[in-house]
Amino acid sequence: MAKWVYSFGGGNAEGRAEMRNLLGGKGANLAEMSSLGLPVPPGFTITTDLCTHFYANGKTYPRELTAEVATALKQVEDRVGAKFGDASNPLLVSVRSGARASMPGMMDTVLNLGLNDKTVEGLAKKSGDARFAYDSYRRFIQMYAQVVLGVEHHHFEDAIENHKLETGVTLDTQLKAEDWQDVIDQYKTLVKRELGHDFPQDPQEQLWGAIGAVFGSWMNQRAITYRRLHDIPADWGTAVTVQAMVFGNMGDDCATGVAFTRNPSTGVQEFYGEYLVNAQGEDVVAGIRTPQHLTLAGKKAQNSTLPAMEEVMPTVFAELEKVRHTLEAHYRDMQDIEFTVQQGKLYMLQTRNGKRTAPAALKIAVDLANAGVIDRNEAIRRIEPLSLDQLLHPTLDPKAPKTVLARGLPASPGAASGMMVFSADEAEARAQKGDAVILVRIETSPEDIHGMHAARGILTTRGGMTSHAAVVARGMGRTCVAGAGDIRVDYAAKTISSKGQVVKAGEIITINGSTGEVMIGEVPTIQPELSGDFATLMEWADKVRTMGVRANADTPTDAKNARRFGAEGIGLCRTEHMFFDGNRIAAVREMIMADDGEGRKKALDKLLPMQRGDFEELFRIMAGLPVTIRLLDPPLHEFLPKTDAEMEEIAKATGKDMAFLHHRAAALHEANPMLGHRGCRLAITAPEIYEMQARAIFEAAANVTKETGAQLIPEIMIPLIATKKELDVLKTMIDRIGADVAKEKGVKLTYLVGTMIELPRAALRAAEIAESAEFFSFGTNDLTQTCFGLSRDDAGNFLDAYLKQGLIDHDPFISIDRDGVGELMTIAVERGKRTRPKLKLGICGEHGGDPASVQFCHEIGLDYVSCSPYRVPIARLAAAQAALSREAITTTA
Amino acid sequence: MAKWVYSFGGGNAEGRAEMRNLLGGKGANLAEMSSLGLPVPPGFTITTDLCTHFYANGKTYPRELTAEVATALKQVEDRVGAKFGDASNPLLVSVRSGARASMPGMMDTVLNLGLNDKTVEGLAKKSGDARFAYDSYRRFIQMYAQVVLGVEHHHFEDAIENHKLETGVTLDTQLKAEDWQDVIDQYKTLVKRELGHDFPQDPQEQLWGAIGAVFGSWMNQRAITYRRLHDIPADWGTAVTVQAMVFGNMGDDCATGVAFTRNPSTGVQEFYGEYLVNAQGEDVVAGIRTPQHLTLAGKKAQNSTLPAMEEVMPTVFAELEKVRHTLEAHYRDMQDIEFTVQQGKLYMLQTRNGKRTAPAALKIAVDLANAGVIDRNEAIRRIEPLSLDQLLHPTLDPKAPKTVLARGLPASPGAASGMMVFSADEAEARAQKGDAVILVRIETSPEDIHGMHAARGILTTRGGMTSHAAVVARGMGRTCVAGAGDIRVDYAAKTISSKGQVVKAGEIITINGSTGEVMIGEVPTIQPELSGDFATLMEWADKVRTMGVRANADTPTDAKNARRFGAEGIGLCRTEHMFFDGNRIAAVREMIMADDGEGRKKALDKLLPMQRGDFEELFRIMAGLPVTIRLLDPPLHEFLPKTDAEMEEIAKATGKDMAFLHHRAAALHEANPMLGHRGCRLAITAPEIYEMQARAIFEAAANVTKETGAQLIPEIMIPLIATKKELDVLKTMIDRIGADVAKEKGVKLTYLVGTMIELPRAALRAAEIAESAEFFSFGTNDLTQTCFGLSRDDAGNFLDAYLKQGLIDHDPFISIDRDGVGELMTIAVERGKRTRPKLKLGICGEHGGDPASVQFCHEIGLDYVSCSPYRVPIARLAAAQAALSREAITTTA
Repeated sequence: MAKWVYSFGGGNAEGRAEMRNLLGGKGANLAEMSSLGLPVPPGFTITTDLCTHFYANGKTYPRELTAEVATALKQVEDRVGAKFGDASNPLLVSVRSGARASMPGMMDTVLNLGLNDKTVEGLAKKSGDARFAYDSYRRFIQMYAQVVLGVEHHHFEDAIENHKLETGVTLDTQLKAEDWQDVIDQYKTLVKRELGHDFPQDPQEQLWGAIGAVFGSWMNQRAITYRRLHDIPADWGTAVTVQAMVFGNMGDDCATGVAFTRNPSTGVQEFYGEYLVNAQGEDVVAGIRTPQHLTLAGKKAQNSTLPAMEEVMPTVFAELEKVRHTLEAHYRDMQDIEFTVQQGKLYMLQTRNGKRTAPAALKIAVDLANAGVIDRNEAIRRIEPLSLDQLLHPTLDPKAPKTVLARGLPASPGAASGMMVFSADEAEARAQKGDAVILVRIETSPEDIHGMHAARGILTTRGGMTSHAAVVARGMGRTCVAGAGDIRVDYAAKTISSKGQVVKAGEIITINGSTGEVMIGEVPTIQPELSGDFATLMEWADKVRTMGVRANADTPTDAKNARRFGAEGIGLCRTEHMFFDGNRIAAVREMIMADDGEGRKKALDKLLPMQRGDFEELFRIMAGLPVTIRLLDPPLHEFLPKTDAEMEEIAKATGKDMAFLHHRAAALHEANPMLGHRGCRLAITAPEIYEMQARAIFEAAANVTKETGAQLIPEIMIPLIATKKELDVLKTMIDRIGADVAKEKGVKLTYLVGTMIELPRAALRAAEIAESAEFFSFGTNDLTQTCFGLSRDDAGNFLDAYLKQGLIDHDPFISIDRDGVGELMTIAVERGKRTRPKLKLGICGEHGGDPASVQFCHEIGLDYVSCSPYRVPIARLAAAQAALSREAITTTA
Repeated sequence: MAKWVYSFGGGNAEGRAEMRNLLGGKGANLAEMSSLGLPVPPGFTITTDLCTHFYANGKTYPRELTAEVATALKQVEDRVGAKFGDASNPLLVSVRSGARASMPGMMDTVLNLGLNDKTVEGLAKKSGDARFAYDSYRRFIQMYAQVVLGVEHHHFEDAIENHKLETGVTLDTQLKAEDWQDVIDQYKTLVKRELGHDFPQDPQEQLWGAIGAVFGSWMNQRAITYRRLHDIPADWGTAVTVQAMVFGNMGDDCATGVAFTRNPSTGVQEFYGEYLVNAQGEDVVAGIRTPQHLTLAGKKAQNSTLPAMEEVMPTVFAELEKVRHTLEAHYRDMQDIEFTVQQGKLYMLQTRNGKRTAPAALKIAVDLANAGVIDRNEAIRRIEPLSLDQLLHPTLDPKAPKTVLARGLPASPGAASGMMVFSADEAEARAQKGDAVILVRIETSPEDIHGMHAARGILTTRGGMTSHAAVVARGMGRTCVAGAGDIRVDYAAKTISSKGQVVKAGEIITINGSTGEVMIGEVPTIQPELSGDFATLMEWADKVRTMGVRANADTPTDAKNARRFGAEGIGLCRTEHMFFDGNRIAAVREMIMADDGEGRKKALDKLLPMQRGDFEELFRIMAGLPVTIRLLDPPLHEFLPKTDAEMEEIAKATGKDMAFLHHRAAALHEANPMLGHRGCRLAITAPEIYEMQARAIFEAAANVTKETGAQLIPEIMIPLIATKKELDVLKTMIDRIGADVAKEKGVKLTYLVGTMIELPRAALRAAEIAESAEFFSFGTNDLTQTCFGLSRDDAGNFLDAYLKQGLIDHDPFISIDRDGVGELMTIAVERGKRTRPKLKLGICGEHGGDPASVQFCHEIGLDYVSCSPYRVPIARLAAAQAALSREAITTTA
């Protein structure tokens, strides 16, 4: 027969910390603390299984529950030496919900349960404090009526306010025992009016009412929504913990407080916390009274004049300090604890792993590992990879005041202030003069790259987390707020406006790419410092991980950043980003406007030395590390001029008339450019482009090899392959040019030719594509777009609704959709390896810097992930955690 | 040991018709005719295996070949009674290539081989005709030098022209034996000059030279290209047939001719052919002399004055007539034959299945089946389904003269003439006045539907075979030429132009949607007549097929057409096509511009009665047949007004200001609408639309059920499902509305809710989607777009290059890509059926009317295909053929 109730208290417990699933977090840790001999008020926990049973059986309890609860309650009475419902020596209890995972959507706590018109007098006598007793009783009625009986909050507030008005006082503390008795009478009348029956006086009825309310709250709308959003199964259920009350508000020898066993902001090993004398827990949280520091050191550090617990209650403090060490040694992690001192005696009410900032998390993990409390693998596991992002970018000074204009998506982390400009050219011009600028655009395009580079930050009003602006900004390490749809940009007037506020070009704005906030004026920022703990943990992570981590880097600046952040090569160099530079774009446009291969070749000949120079510099910086270069990918119309003036320049350069150029430009227009004439398709219709690029790569490799003596192995990557034949045609062409260059330069060239897997068809045909491809790199951005039929530029219009309605668990452009995209990847890996067991496998989509996706890449056996330079540390840590995890591939058909 | 040489002649043969793969089509049929006892000049065939051996062994022959050829040649000598190379009684032979499949890219025939300076005199003496002998010799030199030795054609032409100039004659026929002797001398000099050696005099050298040339030609560039384009494997090889020469040009008792055993234009059972007295086969083809009819009936039918073979050579004709019946009885199909009469004796030189028109094919198949020569299944198999298209649309009178302006893609078959107009509104207005119009647009959009309906034909200058214009035109049965890129449309000037020719609005043009031609002026057309043979064969096909055939139909006209062509229901009714009608579009726009659900609902309330009316009419026409209705699919911006005037109308109707409307319209703009906010995504963010549509369907079903008494089962189809949760939310909503309507109307509603499978993710997740979906309908247009990453609107820019370069075998929007899209379909079928064994499966993409795709759908077990009404007969026949085929599923991983 199932056991439904677990007791704890008096240095014993039937539960343990590991029984979190059965007893909830709170119940399990109370049991654990009790077993440790810590002073925990006795109590018992009704299991989550009971909750499941309750819902499986038409909201009824098993027969044996009544007896089990009675036994457990009896034990509590014995341990406390008081009796539940006894008029002279009443036992009071708290009733709390507690699920496996913290669930703010559920029932709150009910305190002081067991009070009624009779026991309140017993409490008054026993405590010698009638005001305390009646205050406790009115709190109980208010809490119980609200939480259990569903009477609305404001009724009670009104009653108190009325009483204060009548008696002419303004503060609750001015109310006396008699006042509370009056209030209690009003409360009872109020409950009767609202519910049609009296407030329950029978403590047993109160107890079962509260227990039922907790189980009932598991299925309230807030809890259901919360579970859906956080992917918590309904059958986990909640537990109920019933515990003897202790009071921190029975006099000046009483207190209540919260503490962290280490400093949660810095991670420094110091006792850190606050307390209030003669108060209940809710008073600390409510912030009406200024809390006092626990320690003298804390008091001193904050220049506080209020006495520290260490000086006021030295004995109890010493005991608490001992508890601190006991708990940390036992849980092997920094703890967040709650305690109450009742008449000079310490009681522990809660312990759990404490939340902390990213720097604190690093310091604590490294310190604990160095102290031998945990091993290095455990230290690695304890750091949330994404939290590292906080360490790598400037952040807003949290103390600085700010005026928020609007909010967009936190598209690229960090914070930046600058003069607002509306065009890439102006951004560049002003930046050259030394101004800090924020580039504001409705949306960005590849034409804006130079302006994005020049700007401190980018703000767009359209587009999602993976819009052009967001992707490029993350790649460059620029902060970016994207899709701030509430802001209207007026290019003509050179203003932005939101809810009546208008900001003009040239004025200063601040954007916070970690929160999405857009602020008027300058808000001071704090520069990042990569502490020694960061370096230490990264070193440990690097030793553990089996996957390589490369960076997506297009420019020398990117490449240098990549190495600084520990990238082991370049996994994606997007050559098109090199096409937009001032003197190049003209040649690119000439090439596009040519109507035959000859004309294209002439224009491309001008680009060759520039591309070669780009690659030489990248090869030098990467010093022999692998460099994967993707040949031209975007549709040609991305390079077209937007203005007539620019069009006339081309007319001059090419000798074509404007009508022809306009006709040609119109012909390049596409309904769905994402699915259009791009990637390898460009090279099928105009092979000259890839010929030039291949030659530039080979010549650069030959030159740098000669220069440095180190053998370079460029990895040439062909985008948007759908069929093996495409790859064959282009690989043959590349090999031919490789042979030509080798002959011309008199060197031996070693290189790989591979393909992106970014179309469902390529994933399905991986077996035959691997016959020709020497490596696969998953382009998961496009694979997600095609698998889902979802344009990342347009998804902003509805993806939010999908997330809110729980139709998807997460944005598939941020974290790989395992069930769909993931299956295609798994298929591609299996089929590719079947053909070519040593096939090199990587990922170069945005997902390469997302921890959950890195985990998945590890599971399916990729050799490396590649992500933007600023994500490299995140990927290194995530890869290490993946290597440590024992999870098998969970994707199923 | 392999046998390399197969002899035939004298009523015997070592080969048979079935040995086509080994002996080539020509050799196999010569052997077959010889075995049948028909008068075939003796000869032998060297096998295709020899060709393979030749290339596998460094272009060498096996040792034993020489002996085998010598033996076979000796047999020919014996059978003819002449000797190869004998000066007085020389055997002459022809040498021809002959592959398994007809390959125009390969070597031509060499005739008269064995002639040299000596044997020519023997031939002269033997035939008693010196001019004939020398003419034959010079023809041989010319042909051999050209085909075997590679001397350019024009040299020989020049030599003859020079000679005629010198002797002052103008026609070849005026040249005498001596003239030919002079020409021969010049030819020999010419060969020596060009090649550096004499023309080979040794007949054995000539023979082996010709054999080597045939095998060599298998790998010439033309042949390689042809094979690549027609997917013919290189290892099939070619055979070589060496055959004794017979001459139709030795005098007036000689003749040569070609004939069909039935009329290839009409299929009527009449002997149909032409002949020439005293001529060689090439003279018939060259068209210098007017060929004469074989039969008196033929002569009479054509009012010819030239004598028929039946009267000139009655005995030989009678023999030929007998051969005709023998061959047809033997091959059980209409034959295309070649014959020669040498000095009163008939020789058969070739037989093969004759090419025929679609009506002829139908008639012949039905006649042969009715006569018991073949069975009905065989009759079904013999009709190329696509050829039926010829029967269903008006066609151009082939005899009418025409001026072609340009050429586009044959996007929707048929032909039409009319006044050129440039806008849908004008098309409608003029059509209402009774004018025939052709609507000319750069490209069409859903806004043009009414104009496309009103027009006789549609011409666009942009877009491919599956562009909007093409798809809609095929659906409506309007002829359409799409993507005529050479034509420039000037909307302002209201002209079209191509290569300097300009046509103005209001002038008549003719378009041929079966060939893609655009013609200036009116070209007469012929109306289709569905003959009894068509109906008969369709009836037979319907009995055989196991898959259902439905039609894609959006309007009552479509639905009526669908039934006329034999559709068994509607597989796809696109509700959005109903949104564009004059008085509806205003309400649609109001709905789009509303900024909340309330505003949308108000606008939708106006649409409800109209949609209900649409469905009622469709249900009445389809009279209980299944009707699948797809809820709104396209992105809302497709419905937006294009002009400011229209925008102002909305402003008036909605009370919003223009700035708001422009802002909202801009916000609806999408970078990749195909992957954007459309399909079920619309209903997730604005459920009111689908609610209205579901209500309209249910109310219509209830009303028509009451009216007719027949239970209707509408199938409600939700587009663009990517996840099961989307479907669940929408199905719940539909069920709720179904329950509401059932209650309001007091009826029981029966309906199915299903989904399109048009995204790779949906195919992969089919198992769970089938938990909720009651049917799947494959939307293979979009599935192809997403699987391939290929926009059908943009693919025109490069798909042609892909086809030309052999990178893809066929346009994947026309015929399902089995390897990619097909695998996704197979996966979806397997997984869907695993969950719901009785899952109803169909296809409603354009592929539903493509025979190869219909075959595939049959293989993977779909229940029905749905296609545009005009394709329904094609699909019915293709489905029957699929049912008859024994091919297993050939898609592999």
